[in-house]
Amino acid sequence: MMVSYYYNGLVESDIMISDRKFAGSMYDCWLRYEICDEKVLDEYKDYFKYIVVKKDNPIINNAVDELKKALSKLVDDAKVLRHMIESDCIFIGTLDDFESEGLYVDLEDELKSEGFALKILKRNGKNVLSIIGGSEKGVLYGVFHLIRSVFGGKNLEDTLCIENPQNDFRILNHWDNMDGNIERGYAGKSIFFRDNRIVQDFSRIKDYARLLASIAVNGVVINNVNVHQQETKLITDEFLPDVAKIADVFRNYGIKTYLSINFASPVEIGGLSTADPLDDGVKKWWKDAASKIYSYIPDFGGFLVKADSEFRPGPFTYGRNHADGANMLSEALKPYGGIVIWRTFVYNCMVDWRDRSTDRAKAAYDNFKPLDGKFLDNVVLQVKNGPMDFQIREPITPLFGAMEKTNVFMEFQITQEYTGQQKHLCYLVPLWKEALDFDTFAKGEGSFVKKVVNGSLFGARYGGIVAVANVGDSECWTGHPLAQSNLYGFGRLAWNPDLSSREIAEEWVRLTFGCDKDVLDTVVPMLLESREIYEEYTSPLGIGWMVNPGHHYGPNVDGYEYSHWGTYHYADFKGIGVDRTVATGTGYTAQYKEPVAKMYENIDTCPDELLLFFHHVPYSHKLKSGKTVIQHIYDTHFEGVERAEKMRDAWITLKGKISDEIYEAVLERFDIQVVDAKEWRDVVNTYFYRKTGIKDEHGRKIYE
Amino acid sequence: MMVSYYYNGLVESDIMISDRKFAGSMYDCWLRYEICDEKVLDEYKDYFKYIVVKKDNPIINNAVDELKKALSKLVDDAKVLRHMIESDCIFIGTLDDFESEGLYVDLEDELKSEGFALKILKRNGKNVLSIIGGSEKGVLYGVFHLIRSVFGGKNLEDTLCIENPQNDFRILNHWDNMDGNIERGYAGKSIFFRDNRIVQDFSRIKDYARLLASIAVNGVVINNVNVHQQETKLITDEFLPDVAKIADVFRNYGIKTYLSINFASPVEIGGLSTADPLDDGVKKWWKDAASKIYSYIPDFGGFLVKADSEFRPGPFTYGRNHADGANMLSEALKPYGGIVIWRTFVYNCMVDWRDRSTDRAKAAYDNFKPLDGKFLDNVVLQVKNGPMDFQIREPITPLFGAMEKTNVFMEFQITQEYTGQQKHLCYLVPLWKEALDFDTFAKGEGSFVKKVVNGSLFGARYGGIVAVANVGDSECWTGHPLAQSNLYGFGRLAWNPDLSSREIAEEWVRLTFGCDKDVLDTVVPMLLESREIYEEYTSPLGIGWMVNPGHHYGPNVDGYEYSHWGTYHYADFKGIGVDRTVATGTGYTAQYKEPVAKMYENIDTCPDELLLFFHHVPYSHKLKSGKTVIQHIYDTHFEGVERAEKMRDAWITLKGKISDEIYEAVLERFDIQVVDAKEWRDVVNTYFYRKTGIKDEHGRKIYE
Repeated sequence: MMVSYYYNGLVESDIMISDRKFAGSMYDCWLRYEICDEKVLDEYKDYFKYIVVKKDNPIINNAVDELKKALSKLVDDAKVLRHMIESDCIFIGTLDDFESEGLYVDLEDELKSEGFALKILKRNGKNVLSIIGGSEKGVLYGVFHLIRSVFGGKNLEDTLCIENPQNDFRILNHWDNMDGNIERGYAGKSIFFRDNRIVQDFSRIKDYARLLASIAVNGVVINNVNVHQQETKLITDEFLPDVAKIADVFRNYGIKTYLSINFASPVEIGGLSTADPLDDGVKKWWKDAASKIYSYIPDFGGFLVKADSEFRPGPFTYGRNHADGANMLSEALKPYGGIVIWRTFVYNCMVDWRDRSTDRAKAAYDNFKPLDGKFLDNVVLQVKNGPMDFQIREPITPLFGAMEKTNVFMEFQITQEYTGQQKHLCYLVPLWKEALDFDTFAKGEGSFVKKVVNGSLFGARYGGIVAVANVGDSECWTGHPLAQSNLYGFGRLAWNPDLSSREIAEEWVRLTFGCDKDVLDTVVPMLLESREIYEEYTSPLGIGWMVNPGHHYGPNVDGYEYSHWGTYHYADFKGIGVDRTVATGTGYTAQYKEPVAKMYENIDTCPDELLLFFHHVPYSHKLKSGKTVIQHIYDTHFEGVERAEKMRDAWITLKGKISDEIYEAVLERFDIQVVDAKEWRDVVNTYFYRKTGIKDEHGRKIYE
Repeated sequence: MMVSYYYNGLVESDIMISDRKFAGSMYDCWLRYEICDEKVLDEYKDYFKYIVVKKDNPIINNAVDELKKALSKLVDDAKVLRHMIESDCIFIGTLDDFESEGLYVDLEDELKSEGFALKILKRNGKNVLSIIGGSEKGVLYGVFHLIRSVFGGKNLEDTLCIENPQNDFRILNHWDNMDGNIERGYAGKSIFFRDNRIVQDFSRIKDYARLLASIAVNGVVINNVNVHQQETKLITDEFLPDVAKIADVFRNYGIKTYLSINFASPVEIGGLSTADPLDDGVKKWWKDAASKIYSYIPDFGGFLVKADSEFRPGPFTYGRNHADGANMLSEALKPYGGIVIWRTFVYNCMVDWRDRSTDRAKAAYDNFKPLDGKFLDNVVLQVKNGPMDFQIREPITPLFGAMEKTNVFMEFQITQEYTGQQKHLCYLVPLWKEALDFDTFAKGEGSFVKKVVNGSLFGARYGGIVAVANVGDSECWTGHPLAQSNLYGFGRLAWNPDLSSREIAEEWVRLTFGCDKDVLDTVVPMLLESREIYEEYTSPLGIGWMVNPGHHYGPNVDGYEYSHWGTYHYADFKGIGVDRTVATGTGYTAQYKEPVAKMYENIDTCPDELLLFFHHVPYSHKLKSGKTVIQHIYDTHFEGVERAEKMRDAWITLKGKISDEIYEAVLERFDIQVVDAKEWRDVVNTYFYRKTGIKDEHGRKIYE
C-alpha cells in the first residue's frame, strides 16, 4: 500500500512552513509606527503636542488612543485635552464638534458619513490641524489617514484632503469553521473559533479590529460561507452571547459583524419540516431568529448566504428561486436595518465532462439575470470578479453589466487559494484593479465595474467590495509576511479604487519596512510583477485550473479535466482552449454588452491573455505577440521560473535592511516558490511536449 | 472556493454504500450450514448420530462444537461421547487417540502437525468415520473439511483424504488502526480497535476466529504495518493485557497472534536516544519488550515490520541494513520461538519523475538480494507478489527466484485497494495462482514460486503465504458480499496452491448460496472472469496505476505521472510504456533468471498482457493478438464495460434464488461497477484519443 496522504512533490515545504514560527516583528503590520523621514516630520511636529477631542465614546476613544500611540513615537509628551487650547494642536471631531468651537468648515454637503477631511484651520492665530469626520467612523479613518501620511513620509500639504469612501460596504469574509480550521486558509487557525466554541480571549480580535479600521474595513463576516452543523447554531442562544462579544470589539472600531447562515436552519436546528422560503412557518422562524440576534447585537450587519451552490441547501429544494430565498430573509432583517448578502456563485457542479455544451462560466448570469428587479432593496448580490473561481486570470463576470435593478457587491479573494497559497508572492491589487476598471459598456463607454459595485452606475441603494480574508493566527497574520500587502491593498482599494497598484504598494512598503530606498526600489517592483510571474509558470492564456484537485496547489494539467466541476481545457494533440463564442461555442460571449461581446467573440480582437478562455485554437495559432501558442507556453514557463529566481535574488540583497526574522521567513518562502515554480514549469512543458511533439524553438530542456 | 473533498465522479456511490446496511444473512459466510444435496447426505447420515472425542481442550472443544452445530442441521440428535461406542460413528482425535482405541492408522510419517486424514476405519464390524489430526489443529481443520464436503455436496468417497498444508504459515495482515479506521479498508471499521482502545466485546472476534479456522488460517497480525503513535504502545503493559485477550480467542481456534511494531519504539516509547539495531541498549530494550509480551502471550507469533519504507523508520537512519534490523529483533524473539516478518516493500518514494533511470520495480531485489544469507533463521522476508504494488496486472517479483538462503513469505492483498475497492467484483484467486504458478527457473524448470514460498525449493526453514485482509465490521464482513470469495479463496489457496480457481469458486458458491444449478452456473463464471473484466476497463497491458492519487479509485491516467512515487507510463503522442530492458531501459529484466529474463527482454516473446510494463512501444505496435496497442486499449475498454453489464444482467436472473437482501446489496454494487466502468472507459479512451488522434477502427463513441 501507499501511505494515504496526497502528495505532489510539495508537501515537504508545507511541513517546513507550518512548523516554523517567527517572532512578532510583523505582528503590527503597517502600524509599527517607525518614522522614516525626519524631514517630513518637521512639518507636523508643532501640531503634535496637543490632541484636542471633545467627544467621549468608544470609537473616538480608540481613535485618540491610536493617535497617542503613534505620536508617542514622535514627540515626548503629546497631551490629550477635552477642550480647545490656545496653541497649535490637532483637533479631532465630527462636524458638530467643530461648529461648537466656532470653526465652520462648510463640509456638510461634501462629507459622507464615513468620510473625513484634514485641514489646517486658523483659530485665534494658532494653526489647528483638523481631522473632521462625517461621523465618529470618519474621525477614526481620518486619524489613520494622518498616521499613514506621517509614517509613510508624505508631506503635510499632500496629506490635507477631503476623502469619502467610494464604496459604502467594505467587508471581509472569513471562511473560518468553529473547529478552528479555516477553509482555504494558509495562515494558521481561526482567530475567532477553537474547538467548536468562540475564543474567550478577545485581545487578538481587538488587534485585528484595529488593523482593519486602519484600512477602513467596516464589516466582517466571521464564519465560513459553507455553514456546517455547529456553525448553524451561531444564530442561537447557545452562541449569540459570544458572537455579541466579538461584535462589541468590532463595533468600537467601526466594524459591523455579520454571520453566514445555513438556509436549511429551520429544519436543521428549528425542528421544522421545511425550509421553504414561502412557508409561513419558515418566515416566522427567521423573523424570530432575527429578533433574537438583534437583541444581542443591535447593529448586526446581516446574513451572508451561500445557497444552492456546491451542495449547500437553498430555495431550489422547494421549487423556489434565489429571489424567493433572499427576500424572505431580507424581510426578517429589514426592521433592524440588516441586509442579506446573497452569493451568485451558483453553478452546476455535477457536470458531465463529456458534455461540451454546458458552460460553468455562463451560470451566474443565467441564474441571476432573469431575477434582476425581483430582489428587495436590502438584498445585495455578492458576485465574484470572474465567472469561474478566483483563477490567476479570468475575464470579468458579465453579470456586473447586467444587473440594473439589483444591489451588487464585488467579491475578491485575498486568501491565495489558486494564487500560491501564501507560499508564493502574489500581490493581487493589479488583478483587482483590472476587474474594477473593466468597462461593461452597460450604459455606454465608461460604465466601469467600480461604478457598478459602488452603486453609482445604476443608482443602486447599496454598493460595496467584499473579500475573503487571508488571515489566521499566524504570527504575522498572513503566513507569508509579504501577503500582508494584499490585506492592506484590499482595504485601500475598497476605499478608493482609483488608487494605483503602485501607490498602494509604496504606501505598504514604507509603513511596513520604512523608507529605505533600496527596500522600496526592490520590494515595490517585486510586488507589482508578482502576479504576472505566478501566471507565467502556472496555467497559460486565461485557461486556468491545471492544479491538483482538492487542495489546489501544484501543477496537474489534467487535474480537473475529467471531473464534474465544469473546469476543462480540452487539450488534445491539435489544440487547446474552450470555445465560448456564439458562432461555434457555448455562446458565453453574448452575456457581455457590445462592444465587449464582439471583442471576445472575434479571435483577432480577443486579448492574448484570455485567448484560451474564449477560443479553442491549434497550438500553431499565432498570438498578437507573434509567438505560437505552444511557444508561448514554453516561453512563459521558462521565464516565470527565471523571474521567480530573480525575485528571490533581489530579496537576498536586502539582508540587513529587513529584520533578520522577517528576512529569513520571506527567503524561506521564496526558496519554496522557486522550487515549486520549477515543478510547475517542467510538468506543464512536458505535458504539452508529450501531447504535441513540438520542440521548444530555443532548445531549452523539456523533459520527455 | 470549491468544497474541499476530492471527487472524481464516484463519491455518490461511496455515500450510498457506506450508509447502507443489510441484515445478517451473509454474516455466517460459507458456514451457514444449509444442506444442498440430500442424496449426498444419505452417504454420511449413519455416522452422524455419534461424535466420539476423547480429548478435552479448547481447540478440540471448538471443533466438536462446530461439528455439533453443523450436524444439528442434518440429524435430530447427534450425541457427543467421551468413549468409543459400538455403532457407526464419527471419531475425532489425534494419532494417539486412535492408537489408544487400537485403531492403528500408520500416518505418523504422512501427517504433518497441522495435517489431517479422513478415513473409514472398521472397529468391531462397525464403520468409524475417522478424523485424524496430526495435532489438535489438524483435528479442527479435518472437522471443517468434513463440514465443507457435506454441505458442499461432495460424496463420501471424495471426502476421504490425507491432507497437509503446503504452507506452514498462513497469515492475515490487518491494516487496522487503533482509532478504528482500516487503512485501505472497504468494509467498515476495525473489529479489533475503537477509539484508540482494544474492543472489549470479543464475540465478533470469536466469530472471526471461527471463520478463519474454517479455512485453516493460522496467524493474524492485528494492527496496521504503518504503526502510528498509539499502536506503538501495543507492546506495552498498557495494551498487552487486552492484546492477550484477543490472542486467547484466536488461540482456541489454532491461530497465533502477531503485532506490527514500530522500529523506532525504543526512542518513541522507550526513552532511548537511538533505535540503532547494533546498540546494546536497543538490543536490551527489545529483549525486555519480548520478555514482557511473552509473559502475557506465551505463544505470541512474532513481529511484522515495515521499516525504511514510505517514511517509516528503520535501520537506515543509523547506517545499518535490513539484516541488522531484522536480526536484532529476531534475537529478542528467538528464546520464545517467535519470528520476525520483515517486509521487502522498500523503495525510493521520493523519485524525480524527470529521472527515467530510477526504476521502482528494481528496488526490492536491489535492496534485499545482497543480503541473502545474512538473515537469522527466524527471520522471514515478506514479499509482495508484484514488484510495484498490488496492481491488477504485474509480473512476479524476481526476488522470489533470488533468495536462496532466506525464508520468504508471499504477500497478497485481499482488500481491493487497486482492484475495485469492494464496489467492483474482482475474484482475485486467478491473480494469486498466476503468481504461485510462476516458474522462476531458479533451480531449473519447475522452480515455481509456490515452491519458493513453501520453503521446499531452497530448503528454507519457514514458508508461508500472507494476505492483507478485506474484512471490517461490515454486516457481511467484506462490504461486497461476493468479496467473501476472496477471503475464502485465500485460505484455501494458502493451504493448497494446487487447487484451481474454479474449484475454489465452486466450493465457495455452494457453501454460500447452496447448490442451485442456475446460481452455480451464473456466479462461478462471473467470479472467474471478473479480474479480467476489471483489468479491461482500467489500465492496459500491465502498465498499472492510472488511478486517482491518494484513494486509488477511479480513472486518472496522469494521476501518478508527475508524482514522486516512481509509477509512470510515459505516454506521449508517439507511444507508451516503461522500457525495463537491459538493452535500452532500466535493466530490470536482468533480475529474472533465464529464460525468463530473455522472454521479458525480447519484445517478441514478452507476453502481451505485460508488454507496457517491460517495453515502451509506439501506439501502432502490433500485439500478438494482431491488434495495435491503441486499438487494444479502445477494444478492451469498450469490452470491459459490456462484460460488466453482462455480469449485472446475469445477476438479475438470480432474483428469487438468492435472499432478497443479498440480491439487492450485490445488485447495488453491480450498478455502481457499471457506472464507474463507463467512467473509466471514457476517460481512458478520451485521454489516448486526445493524445494520439487515432480513431477507433470500429467507430464507437470516443468523446473528444
